[in-house]
Amino acid sequence: MLALMNKIKVTLLPENREIWVPQGEMLSEALLMAGFALETPCAGHGVCGKCKVQVMGALAASTSGSVESAGHLELYAAEWQHLSLEEIQQGYRLACQVVLQEDVQVKISPEFREVLRKTIDITSTGNGSKFPLCPLVRKVFLVLPEPTLEDRLGDWERMERGLVEKGFLPRPDQMERGLQLDGAVLQELPRVLRVNNYQVTAVLYDSKLIAVEAGDTTASSYGIALDIGTTTMVGGLIDLATGEQLAVTSRTNPQRSFGADVISRISFGSQGKSQLEKLQSRLLEAVNQMIDELIEIAQVDRNHIYEAVVVGNTAIHHLFLGLDPTYLGQGPYVPVVTRPLQVKARQLGIRLRDSSYLYLLPNIAGFVGGDAVGVILSTGLYQSSDIKLAVDIGTNGEIILGSAQQLLACSTAAGPAFEGARIKHGMRAAEGAIEKVIIEEDVKVAVIGSVLPVGISGSGLIDAVAEMLRLGIIDHTGRILSQAELPAELPESIRRRVVKDNNSREFILVWGEESGSSRPITINQEDIRELQLAKGAIAAGIKVLQKELAINKDQITEVYLAGAFGSCINPVSAMVIGLIPAMPLDRVKSVGNAAGAGAKLALLSRSARKQAAGIAREVRYIELSGRPDFQEAFLNAMYFPNLFR
Amino acid sequence: MLALMNKIKVTLLPENREIWVPQGEMLSEALLMAGFALETPCAGHGVCGKCKVQVMGALAASTSGSVESAGHLELYAAEWQHLSLEEIQQGYRLACQVVLQEDVQVKISPEFREVLRKTIDITSTGNGSKFPLCPLVRKVFLVLPEPTLEDRLGDWERMERGLVEKGFLPRPDQMERGLQLDGAVLQELPRVLRVNNYQVTAVLYDSKLIAVEAGDTTASSYGIALDIGTTTMVGGLIDLATGEQLAVTSRTNPQRSFGADVISRISFGSQGKSQLEKLQSRLLEAVNQMIDELIEIAQVDRNHIYEAVVVGNTAIHHLFLGLDPTYLGQGPYVPVVTRPLQVKARQLGIRLRDSSYLYLLPNIAGFVGGDAVGVILSTGLYQSSDIKLAVDIGTNGEIILGSAQQLLACSTAAGPAFEGARIKHGMRAAEGAIEKVIIEEDVKVAVIGSVLPVGISGSGLIDAVAEMLRLGIIDHTGRILSQAELPAELPESIRRRVVKDNNSREFILVWGEESGSSRPITINQEDIRELQLAKGAIAAGIKVLQKELAINKDQITEVYLAGAFGSCINPVSAMVIGLIPAMPLDRVKSVGNAAGAGAKLALLSRSARKQAAGIAREVRYIELSGRPDFQEAFLNAMYFPNLFR
Repeated sequence: MLALMNKIKVTLLPENREIWVPQGEMLSEALLMAGFALETPCAGHGVCGKCKVQVMGALAASTSGSVESAGHLELYAAEWQHLSLEEIQQGYRLACQVVLQEDVQVKISPEFREVLRKTIDITSTGNGSKFPLCPLVRKVFLVLPEPTLEDRLGDWERMERGLVEKGFLPRPDQMERGLQLDGAVLQELPRVLRVNNYQVTAVLYDSKLIAVEAGDTTASSYGIALDIGTTTMVGGLIDLATGEQLAVTSRTNPQRSFGADVISRISFGSQGKSQLEKLQSRLLEAVNQMIDELIEIAQVDRNHIYEAVVVGNTAIHHLFLGLDPTYLGQGPYVPVVTRPLQVKARQLGIRLRDSSYLYLLPNIAGFVGGDAVGVILSTGLYQSSDIKLAVDIGTNGEIILGSAQQLLACSTAAGPAFEGARIKHGMRAAEGAIEKVIIEEDVKVAVIGSVLPVGISGSGLIDAVAEMLRLGIIDHTGRILSQAELPAELPESIRRRVVKDNNSREFILVWGEESGSSRPITINQEDIRELQLAKGAIAAGIKVLQKELAINKDQITEVYLAGAFGSCINPVSAMVIGLIPAMPLDRVKSVGNAAGAGAKLALLSRSARKQAAGIAREVRYIELSGRPDFQEAFLNAMYFPNLFR
Repeated sequence: MLALMNKIKVTLLPENREIWVPQGEMLSEALLMAGFALETPCAGHGVCGKCKVQVMGALAASTSGSVESAGHLELYAAEWQHLSLEEIQQGYRLACQVVLQEDVQVKISPEFREVLRKTIDITSTGNGSKFPLCPLVRKVFLVLPEPTLEDRLGDWERMERGLVEKGFLPRPDQMERGLQLDGAVLQELPRVLRVNNYQVTAVLYDSKLIAVEAGDTTASSYGIALDIGTTTMVGGLIDLATGEQLAVTSRTNPQRSFGADVISRISFGSQGKSQLEKLQSRLLEAVNQMIDELIEIAQVDRNHIYEAVVVGNTAIHHLFLGLDPTYLGQGPYVPVVTRPLQVKARQLGIRLRDSSYLYLLPNIAGFVGGDAVGVILSTGLYQSSDIKLAVDIGTNGEIILGSAQQLLACSTAAGPAFEGARIKHGMRAAEGAIEKVIIEEDVKVAVIGSVLPVGISGSGLIDAVAEMLRLGIIDHTGRILSQAELPAELPESIRRRVVKDNNSREFILVWGEESGSSRPITINQEDIRELQLAKGAIAAGIKVLQKELAINKDQITEVYLAGAFGSCINPVSAMVIGLIPAMPLDRVKSVGNAAGAGAKLALLSRSARKQAAGIAREVRYIELSGRPDFQEAFLNAMYFPNLFR
């Protein structure tokens, strides 16, 4: 593992606002993160000169006047072109050229305060970090001069000159290596240019030319954010120009037929090449179908979708790419790769245009993947000065605890109970799912969609069990009490719902006549045991991380509940069943699909993407398996807290 | 076109040797070019710290001692890690971090003078530039620690750490973008590592991991240099560890069946997609067969060939890649792309390992391609302080004239006469070809191989015509004289060789009984006309370049004759027929296949590759078509010079 984050302080003048950023960060990134309106059409290549700021202290240029003899000529390689000698003496710099090595004070000129750059704020924490809207995909409309005998530049070089002149590319002599152009683009280029009188739109992915389109198509630029869960997949089609989500779709991960949890899929995929290919191709086909649906809903041109950002846990990541998962399933649980990856869509057979890219957020460890990185990114945990806790509850529970100084992460196999699997009437949070339960005079349920209930979602299950605990229908060991044992004060309308089915008891949540399937919807003893295992694993994981950080629960200033199974988990219920430590209610927030939000942030902002890479490197992974303290905590946490005795 | 070369002076101390390099060049490159033994395992990423030099003047660090407050902290981002404060004050720098902006003096520590780095010297000019042997392909044997619970880095990150520790890669936090790994490599990685107990050889192409091999295979690293001429293709298999050529093969370009010259192929390829694909697939299949032959001859493992460098003229370049050649054939003759290109071998169906690369040298203009860049690179023309001329004679004649200050290039459609085509008994310089002709008492011919002659190569043709001119068998208009007109002093043994065939005369070079085909080998009137057209076009091109540079022929200090048709063109004969201006013989050198030598240099040295990119940008292309002065010069130059009257 690499060194922990070393943060330095940037003081913004004149208001003396302080921000903390990782050492080695570019000043421009730091300012963008702080919400300043730096225009950087050149994407930080030092070409456009638009990010001029005045720096005080060690990073300022020498004020002795002996700039040229002071020996830092090439320090300003890009900056010399954009700054006067006077400006250099006054400490002006191009923010995109300054690497922050120590604390620094920065004065930002008034224009940056006025032009408020569009930022994106996707998370529901309310205090998640805002990122500038600057996707890796950029579209530039060019009106190029036609070639003449005097100006006989090659077609690509003509495009490039246009892009350099507009500040979107560095000068060619600053790019010494062989250009990696998409072959398909070069093949179309001569015709597209001439048919359109040299008025075309260049599509850049980072600094790569991935498409040339007829006329001005800058308004149509789309991307896809894909959150591939072990059980549930969610995809959104995003307008890269506005950040708006135009369509959303979800479905069950088809790999479920090879095993409900990642362990069983890892073991299936380890059997051989054909098994691995089966797992991969099912998943990719489902992704293709989701893309088709998104295009159908949003009615956009498939050719204008340039990128899909994918998050998932490490096993899903490997299976998506067809990487051998064998060693994910054997101690010490080593992934094939953790770094962020770019893959051409065509390489995997994803039905986007050939030159489009897939971008996979980095993994942290064998059992903490890009989905956890997405949660950390969208909740802003890695920027917080206070200690916070995020719990992403899916088939696996990922737990992240800490602050900007140090973040710990672990994973527990919660099992698919929270996503409705292995629960008698469980289902994912789709139409007809009971997502909230309140038991007062009688049972009240909230159902997704204007339909009769047909099953129980994860949040509905948590609510129901919490209410049953509160009313004494189940005891702290999880046992459903017999009619004789039920509290005397329990109204008959509730009491009569506790029935015996075969040899075990169950609680009728919805009577047959109120159910969409005409059969009663119940919670039985086995369902409660599944939930106990699931929540016990997570609660024990939290305990171990607390121990590693040497903190008690009162030092946790905020708890984020995240999960693709629904944005409606009730914080009170979560505390009642002991999923999270009991604490003042205002500290607990449901943040919905935070992993997916992270994918959207990465899609919309190169700053977010860069942060994600840093997060993956710097978060410390804690392996729970084989730890006696985890085993002990797990056994204890399977019981429900004694809140109502 | 971009700005002309701006050269600056680097003075090497203590011997006060001066070298001239383009402004903006890295100091490390300049020193490598000068033949110094800089060890740079990190390939200039500032990671290994091995290229420490003492710099005097503006580029030296401040000697005031106030380094830290002088504001160039990040100037030394890499250098701080490798230099002490004292060294910085003494002006020490890492050569790979210093961009040369103005004249500078450099003191090189003794160890660099001792460890004589292996350089390659492929050219036959004798004064061509020497390049350090440092291929883009690097192999590194790694003995990695096995993963443990404490060290659970991902497989790729484990490789990467090993490479960073050995100084072959920059630190991962300095590589912010998504890593572009070859998918196939990632798929093999987990197994290869474990089967070989984490003892593997990493194959790097630039900074990309293109293969991981079992055990230590560093000794086996090969590349292919391919010179694809309009008529003749030559391929060499090169040992990247030693620079040695292990095998060579050549064949006729199969596109010839679609037209002898590039114009007819451009016009065929412009007819539609299927025609273009036909031209491309024939060529690629021939390349594949040549690769098979090279492997067969040299007996190396195909999987250990990691790169093929390709040179050819711009039309060949486009047809090789399947790029639309239409606009190469229409004024203003604009290529699709001129920049150097990297293409995966599998993208074109070239039978090398999937992750191997093809690298195409850059083009200068529509009719001056990577082959001319190869000639300039291998003859060192771009580094010369004196004016020199290079003429690459193939189906097209490329002419380059100038010095380091300014280089001009043009192309003339010489026609395939020099390569034996359209000549009655013409053939390429293969077994059985007459490659030299001397006429004294009788005709003496030198034949390639220990066989009877079967035809005449380009150099043989030039020799023969030169001798016929000298002896007065043809006059300066190119007409073969009648028996009556022949000089009286001509011996009968020669005289009887001038015969009439149909209505035109011909000269019998080899009698039927001395010929491998039992039929006489002759030069007829049409052959001489073809040669006149060919040599006239080249001579006229030289004239126009002279005029553009405003120089006369006496200012040309050296003439290089290059050409794939043979390394044996006789300089005297070339002057006699007027192919090149008459000048003292010691100024004229045959340099053989200089374009192919350029491909080899690029294969073996990343410095050479970088120079090639600069050459392509900076050489000024002169379009001859439509120039009245070229037309006039061409008409004059079709006659032979009156040297013998």
